[in-house]
Amino acid sequence: MAERGIATVSSEDLAAAAGVNSAKLRKDLSHLGSYGTRGVGYDVEYLVYQISRELGLTQDWAVAIVGVGNLGRALANYGGFVSRGFRIAALLDADPEIVGDDIAGLNVEHIDELEAVIGRRGVSIVVLATPAVAAQEVCDRVVSAGVTSILNFAPVVLSVPDSVDVRKVDLSIELQILAFHEQRKAGGPLMAVDSQ
Amino acid sequence: MAERGIATVSSEDLAAAAGVNSAKLRKDLSHLGSYGTRGVGYDVEYLVYQISRELGLTQDWAVAIVGVGNLGRALANYGGFVSRGFRIAALLDADPEIVGDDIAGLNVEHIDELEAVIGRRGVSIVVLATPAVAAQEVCDRVVSAGVTSILNFAPVVLSVPDSVDVRKVDLSIELQILAFHEQRKAGGPLMAVDSQ
Repeated sequence: MAERGIATVSSEDLAAAAGVNSAKLRKDLSHLGSYGTRGVGYDVEYLVYQISRELGLTQDWAVAIVGVGNLGRALANYGGFVSRGFRIAALLDADPEIVGDDIAGLNVEHIDELEAVIGRRGVSIVVLATPAVAAQEVCDRVVSAGVTSILNFAPVVLSVPDSVDVRKVDLSIELQILAFHEQRKAGGPLMAVDSQ
Repeated sequence: MAERGIATVSSEDLAAAAGVNSAKLRKDLSHLGSYGTRGVGYDVEYLVYQISRELGLTQDWAVAIVGVGNLGRALANYGGFVSRGFRIAALLDADPEIVGDDIAGLNVEHIDELEAVIGRRGVSIVVLATPAVAAQEVCDRVVSAGVTSILNFAPVVLSVPDSVDVRKVDLSIELQILAFHEQRKAGGPLMAVDSQ
């Protein structure tokens, strides 16, 4: 709604958009100190701020991206990170052809510097955009260096201690959702037939 | 589970992983013709196949990627698409420096060819990886060419007719989830204090 320039929203419209009931929504938002105005609703921009603060997005998070191929470069240039409070503090790669490149205003550093860079720049989240074969080894080093939040784009399941949060991004998920709808438009899946 | 090499899974374990109850899960899977074996459970690989078929992922979907910068290149090279039944049928860009490049075995074509390429190759899903400023115009052309499924990586909200499905990918969502947990580890958000 903020992106669409909507200034205020009623709890009913917000509840409908979220798929919950409006009494529950009002109660939940009241925990953030957000009450809305009778007859007007919630101020969208202020609500975004309150939720962002609650989610920790108004803090400054130093992020290191390891693996500076096409995906790493795309992520380094991705405007959506900075606007959400994420600061790319380091880019690291093992390839001497890539080390030294300037990307999004940062100099790509050698992976040998990983531990030093994490410590010196207070990196709290590492994004892995390495090839699958390199991901576990880098992950182990990142964990040893004390990082407990890892975003993994490499197509491999990482082993980490329970104290470490890993989120795996599968870029094909959204394509799969589109394909499901496309199949239904084209005449429906087997289930629609089987379950008659 | 398939990625981890797990061969069979009980309905209880599967239900726990999905956060639903096992009786409901067994009933739902029975609609796919999947019943498991008493004392053994479900065959993971077969279940993946049955669900994939239901979602339309065993079909061949021709996908065109428009915008062949770093993100478009990363997507063109992304192994996860092909393994899910998505075939990259075309890469298109407006930049004469990029048109003609060979990426992932495909020749980048000029955006002027968009409508012809969509028609000739039976493209049913278009991935937009253009700069934000170009996305709506490309989107309009894609819709005019008859495509009703669009995956949008450009940081902009697209206007489309109701008959068109657009999914917007926000690469920062997973980072936001990590930041939320990181904040909690670091002493908890305001909410934990406020709600005492």
